[in-house]
Amino acid sequence: RWWLDEELCRRWLSPRPAETHKGRAGHVCLLAGSPGKTGAATLASLGAARVGAGLVTLFVPRSLNPILEVKLTEAMTLPIPETSEHSASIAAETEILDFLHGKQALAVGPGISLHPETQSLLLRLISRVPCPLVLDADALTILAGALDTLGEAPVPVIVTPHPGEMARLMSCRVADVQADRLQVAQEFSRQHGVIVLLKGHRTVIASPEGRVAINGSGTPAMASGGMGDVLTGMIAGFLAQGVEPFQAACLAAYIHGKAAENVCQGKTTRGLLASDLLEHIPLVIGALETA
Amino acid sequence: RWWLDEELCRRWLSPRPAETHKGRAGHVCLLAGSPGKTGAATLASLGAARVGAGLVTLFVPRSLNPILEVKLTEAMTLPIPETSEHSASIAAETEILDFLHGKQALAVGPGISLHPETQSLLLRLISRVPCPLVLDADALTILAGALDTLGEAPVPVIVTPHPGEMARLMSCRVADVQADRLQVAQEFSRQHGVIVLLKGHRTVIASPEGRVAINGSGTPAMASGGMGDVLTGMIAGFLAQGVEPFQAACLAAYIHGKAAENVCQGKTTRGLLASDLLEHIPLVIGALETA
Amino acid sequence: RWWLDEELCRRWLSPRPAETHKGRAGHVCLLAGSPGKTGAATLASLGAARVGAGLVTLFVPRSLNPILEVKLTEAMTLPIPETSEHSASIAAETEILDFLHGKQALAVGPGISLHPETQSLLLRLISRVPCPLVLDADALTILAGALDTLGEAPVPVIVTPHPGEMARLMSCRVADVQADRLQVAQEFSRQHGVIVLLKGHRTVIASPEGRVAINGSGTPAMASGGMGDVLTGMIAGFLAQGVEPFQAACLAAYIHGKAAENVCQGKTTRGLLASDLLEHIPLVIGALETA
Amino acid sequence: RWWLDEELCRRWLSPRPAETHKGRAGHVCLLAGSPGKTGAATLASLGAARVGAGLVTLFVPRSLNPILEVKLTEAMTLPIPETSEHSASIAAETEILDFLHGKQALAVGPGISLHPETQSLLLRLISRVPCPLVLDADALTILAGALDTLGEAPVPVIVTPHPGEMARLMSCRVADVQADRLQVAQEFSRQHGVIVLLKGHRTVIASPEGRVAINGSGTPAMASGGMGDVLTGMIAGFLAQGVEPFQAACLAAYIHGKAAENVCQGKTTRGLLASDLLEHIPLVIGALETA
Repeated sequence: RWWLDEELCRRWLSPRPAETHKGRAGHVCLLAGSPGKTGAATLASLGAARVGAGLVTLFVPRSLNPILEVKLTEAMTLPIPETSEHSASIAAETEILDFLHGKQALAVGPGISLHPETQSLLLRLISRVPCPLVLDADALTILAGALDTLGEAPVPVIVTPHPGEMARLMSCRVADVQADRLQVAQEFSRQHGVIVLLKGHRTVIASPEGRVAINGSGTPAMASGGMGDVLTGMIAGFLAQGVEPFQAACLAAYIHGKAAENVCQGKTTRGLLASDLLEHIPLVIGALETA
Repeated sequence: RWWLDEELCRRWLSPRPAETHKGRAGHVCLLAGSPGKTGAATLASLGAARVGAGLVTLFVPRSLNPILEVKLTEAMTLPIPETSEHSASIAAETEILDFLHGKQALAVGPGISLHPETQSLLLRLISRVPCPLVLDADALTILAGALDTLGEAPVPVIVTPHPGEMARLMSCRVADVQADRLQVAQEFSRQHGVIVLLKGHRTVIASPEGRVAINGSGTPAMASGGMGDVLTGMIAGFLAQGVEPFQAACLAAYIHGKAAENVCQGKTTRGLLASDLLEHIPLVIGALETA
Repeated sequence: RWWLDEELCRRWLSPRPAETHKGRAGHVCLLAGSPGKTGAATLASLGAARVGAGLVTLFVPRSLNPILEVKLTEAMTLPIPETSEHSASIAAETEILDFLHGKQALAVGPGISLHPETQSLLLRLISRVPCPLVLDADALTILAGALDTLGEAPVPVIVTPHPGEMARLMSCRVADVQADRLQVAQEFSRQHGVIVLLKGHRTVIASPEGRVAINGSGTPAMASGGMGDVLTGMIAGFLAQGVEPFQAACLAAYIHGKAAENVCQGKTTRGLLASDLLEHIPLVIGALETA
Repeated sequence: RWWLDEELCRRWLSPRPAETHKGRAGHVCLLAGSPGKTGAATLASLGAARVGAGLVTLFVPRSLNPILEVKLTEAMTLPIPETSEHSASIAAETEILDFLHGKQALAVGPGISLHPETQSLLLRLISRVPCPLVLDADALTILAGALDTLGEAPVPVIVTPHPGEMARLMSCRVADVQADRLQVAQEFSRQHGVIVLLKGHRTVIASPEGRVAINGSGTPAMASGGMGDVLTGMIAGFLAQGVEPFQAACLAAYIHGKAAENVCQGKTTRGLLASDLLEHIPLVIGALETA
């Protein structure tokens, strides 16, 4: 059982060699966004870029592509087939799987909607994805009705529920989750063979072989929409750089909370926006690398 | 009769507990924007987010949705049916009311236009809205022709007129409003059972049971378009966090003016943009919390 | 003959009273932009807002409206009829003139294109506009073929040519303009009854009754596209606040150059973007007001 | 053989005279961008502007124009005919060549795609372009199949491959390139009569007459997508100001790496975005000019 603090994260963060190039820093792919929720896709993409992923490509429902081309600059987009409600369609499966060939991480979930065809797409991807996978937000709601799919994943999977999503995944009440957060995260992790990052005050990270960590960073100012999307991208960004999945989740959680602390600097407990964190992420990483 | 200053606001601003999450910090909804006026919707949405609302959803006329998806990132949008002139249509009523279920505050008005169908929508919402309501800008102009509707509101209502809008609501001249601002605000408040926030140099806030406050913050550099939209969002943001309506209006007014003062720092009296205030809002709140 | 420096500008800049509100700070209208040139419209609009105009409305060819709604937030847009090439159409004349009723300044020119129907629109507006008028960029190229129109303007007019545009207006060579900048500006001003702001190193401002000023601020880093658009908006912004036209042109020129100097701080002579100036404008004004 | 450091770059950077105007600072044109890759076009355009180009015009596939009008403000766009996949079409050739008349530099490549018609357009432009030319990214991949075209270019050409692109151009393995970077760059340069800028740790610049330089600036944090696009624009920006092509490539490489160093300030080795560099570029130039 680890307490995630500066010292531990420093040990887990390997230094980047001078000859690194963008090809070696990994290529993160994300499936995120639907009408009204393109911000979630934006924040996740930037989270991945800000922890040092070499390249970032966002799969985006075709008609939303102009919006995300405007919102993102360094991250690239790949317009994909969409449902009648402009969410990602099952028709995108082949295109996505082809593109994933040779990529290093995939994150799915922020703002993808609960459209039935989008649900089908998610479940197909889980069982076929060729690189480590992060599942968050709408993906977890979809998963709650199809938990067996997790067993089909041929790659390491990280799920990042908040207590409400955890309760849905476990078919229990939120109060049950919060009553013993460590126990709940570990149980789900063992049962389904996935890494669980259970959000909330003192985020818990548990792995199927029994590792468990509690995060020591964070501030109540993080209680606002979009914070989780940034975290999802950050985890994928570390995975793409070859960080071991449990450590990727731990590093992302600690740095995410620390970046928020640094923005607030003890000066405020509310009004923080998720995008405020982004430029502080490299500085937190830098402080870990050099301290 | 209160003088709104740092000390008073500090007393009214309850500290945020460490275990707060975005669900507990409240969900603000806004109905704002029409062609040429999407900036008003943007500023109001960000005002709500910057005082600490957990989630923000903007109802937006369908064809304007791509614009607002680009302008907003943390705030979500919900595209709604629109009139032939791309303003919110009465056909959106059910969708809006359904969505409002379980939400904590609604703000209506900035840049919604005066289209007859938009007028009808507003009046229907006033009598059916399930959560505290802020009415501003175009909503006040519409209201001036249908004042009795205010009596039908099943929830606390806050109106935020500038002197010109107040005069229209009272069917008097602007000079009459300015001649006795306290009296005018109190009279309208008592008569219609709503909280009145009368803008201008030394903003006045009056409640139906007779509370009245005068704001001590602000700068002449606030004499520019969009400042009121930010304020509207801020009030809704405090309402969503469970702040009592009169105090929500008072806190928003003080912090709004103080944020503008801080941007200017006594250095300039013109050229401030409304969006300049936004990132200063959490810092003003933080100074109140910690001082 | 004045040398425009801090001292002179301070005398000409009247302090803003505490009770100012956005209605009293003036409403600037602009006609600017066409495909590929929406940046010019953006910069001019923000120039107007940054000197303290209370409200700013940009007339924009209908199909470009979504672009400018995204680029601008505090400034509003008014979509107008457009030509087949998406520039402002003569069909917009009545709508524009109706809207101008009760407004305080109009700026026309940045990026409007040379489309024949746009030319017609400009010439009609010059002879009918009800408020002080600034003409720049494409408007000057159009004007060069129709100089007599200037005599029909019922309001004060300010033209802001760079040496190339001045040469076109005078049917002479650029070298002739530069050989005696003071003389050329004064001659055109007297002949056509307009205020001339001749750009370039040491900008010259001349009025028909014989006033002439030379600007002492500026840096070679201003040699980049878009700088003139900001200046045009600034002049209109001062006009809207009731500043006398010659002084409005002088104040704008000095503050524009000084803002650029402040961005550079003697540290660089190239790579400045026009939008870098914007947030420095209120600070320069503030330094004039308080020093 | 030069070592590119502050001292050498200072000698090569001529001071800008006080009377410079945007016409004299050169007009850069760029052909860049396709669906999903508009960020590359944005970064290259801003790179050109940030080294001091007077004007920047981006040729953009017609349907992507609204996206780039939003993303760029000072840089102008010219919408051009496009392929069925919304990349630049051969049908744009005449329009582009006409526009290039009297311009000072052209950069082609970032994100243009490998569509056959786009390939044809590139090859036609290479043999007809009237001003110095920079080729990067997709343009290099296209070129690898048509190397003889380089011999037809009537103007100085600079190619900017990373090791993978260099290997494709030389039909060898990446390891062969990296084994003797100096030798490889010089060989390709002599053989094809173009300046080669071979990216990577210690970027190499070689000219056909045998000059060769090694860049001393940079940081591993530059291993992320979009960095090369900024560099391409910077080279074109120096060319447009009349800098000799080899020196233009050298100055751009050094300043690009130094700007990245300055953003990181020894504080972080990852998470830098390409756009973070932009505002630091003028400051690096300024430090060279004044030191």
